[in-house]
Amino acid sequence: MPALEKISDQRLFGGRQMRFAHDSKVLNCRMQFSVYLPPQAGQKDVPALYWLSGLTCNDENFSAKAGAQRVAAELGIALVIPDTSPRGDQVPDDPEGAYDFGLGAGFYVNATEAPFASHYQMYDYIAKELPALVEAELPLSTQRSISGHSMGGHGALVIALRESGRYCSVSAFAPISNPIHCPWGQKALTGYLGKDESHWQHFDASVLLAEKQATLPILVDQGDADQFLAEQLKPEALLAASTISGSELELRIQPGYDHSYYFIASFIEDHLRFHGRYLLPQS
Amino acid sequence: MPALEKISDQRLFGGRQMRFAHDSKVLNCRMQFSVYLPPQAGQKDVPALYWLSGLTCNDENFSAKAGAQRVAAELGIALVIPDTSPRGDQVPDDPEGAYDFGLGAGFYVNATEAPFASHYQMYDYIAKELPALVEAELPLSTQRSISGHSMGGHGALVIALRESGRYCSVSAFAPISNPIHCPWGQKALTGYLGKDESHWQHFDASVLLAEKQATLPILVDQGDADQFLAEQLKPEALLAASTISGSELELRIQPGYDHSYYFIASFIEDHLRFHGRYLLPQS
Repeated sequence: MPALEKISDQRLFGGRQMRFAHDSKVLNCRMQFSVYLPPQAGQKDVPALYWLSGLTCNDENFSAKAGAQRVAAELGIALVIPDTSPRGDQVPDDPEGAYDFGLGAGFYVNATEAPFASHYQMYDYIAKELPALVEAELPLSTQRSISGHSMGGHGALVIALRESGRYCSVSAFAPISNPIHCPWGQKALTGYLGKDESHWQHFDASVLLAEKQATLPILVDQGDADQFLAEQLKPEALLAASTISGSELELRIQPGYDHSYYFIASFIEDHLRFHGRYLLPQS
Repeated sequence: MPALEKISDQRLFGGRQMRFAHDSKVLNCRMQFSVYLPPQAGQKDVPALYWLSGLTCNDENFSAKAGAQRVAAELGIALVIPDTSPRGDQVPDDPEGAYDFGLGAGFYVNATEAPFASHYQMYDYIAKELPALVEAELPLSTQRSISGHSMGGHGALVIALRESGRYCSVSAFAPISNPIHCPWGQKALTGYLGKDESHWQHFDASVLLAEKQATLPILVDQGDADQFLAEQLKPEALLAASTISGSELELRIQPGYDHSYYFIASFIEDHLRFHGRYLLPQS
């Protein structure tokens, strides 16, 4: 069987919006993901922006709703859009089927707790297995940046801060900035990593950013009408952490915007141009 | 009860993506629709582009997937996005629940056949009742253009050709151009208007365009990888009709594009700028 099974391939802004399935060794299940290849990918290997989606999403939400492909086509940047958790009947879910744990809610960690550890290794999948796969099989260079929304903003920041040599830049929309101190994060980290909070620190962007000066540029957008802002997202913790470590963080508060894809759509062009400054050779 | 019940109101590209419910007299049921108000609507009444969606859609598909609001915000054009049929438990549907007739498939005609005639008056709803409502209740001028996709492209062309004094311009993506000669159209026109084909002519864009020279500009985009092109869409009939009547029709065949919202997203900017030339005062 080939490494990638192509599920769909649609013309979009002169490039190709594609969907693939593959066997993930790290996640121990069959996975699907989407890729947008800009027109330039017909001539040469292009850099890639990895996009990590939020709770309840799969790879199709961002593809269909964010409008990112227009500027990606203009700049010559591929979009790699993974799913948000392992999938399949054999993959354990939240016992009550809640939206904020289990399927659709992998939180981009490497689980250590049974029964989740055998599948929920989303950190390694996103940071290692998926890039190796798509860079081998598709016309992508090894220039990477990473971004995401909400749970995916948390994932993007954590992965970029821990693997900073592997990414040119990182950005986030309304990230769960300090998961060890919010209900979504505490539930997920307990479930995947156990009750010992010392293990949680490695998956908290504010902890990581306070510990060590960031070596890559960071852009964060946050709507001030976001219904999850105060209880779950806590961008002020990320800003405080950047001050502690002397890291450069651009945090923009966007008046009137909520937590939806309409917020993402409004500012995705800024994020793509931000990443383009670091992903692309400057003329 | 107020004329419009506001269901949602979200910031998007500096404007407002809103959803409303209202009682439709013409359709004899409660309806929902979406409106995008560009930032300019805070200062003055703005012109509006009406968007008619295709089979199975409601007002949310175009709102979420087409990426139209970015250029609408730049130009100062509102988007008015109605549903595709009457709705509610009391509204009769296709006896087998098919996707191409009944709910989600009103075909923008005024039905004469029982049991559909008591609700399926989508032509009058789109051309008369809805504009009067939104122009009274929202900061919209009476400058209107109209566009749509597939079944909605058919609706936009038919309404604009029949009511040309009420619209500044019309465009369509992959319209059902000659419904009297395709399976989707024949099923719908039989069901809503009866077996006498002479009644169908009034709802066929190619018949209307051949009969009378169009007095407003027409833009049509059609993907050549559209799976419905040959059997259902028949843009060649529209082109032939425009030649017969000496009407100006710009028909663009877009290589590699299919019937999806990715096709719409790729060219919606062109359509908005096209309508803007006729909707907006030229400097």
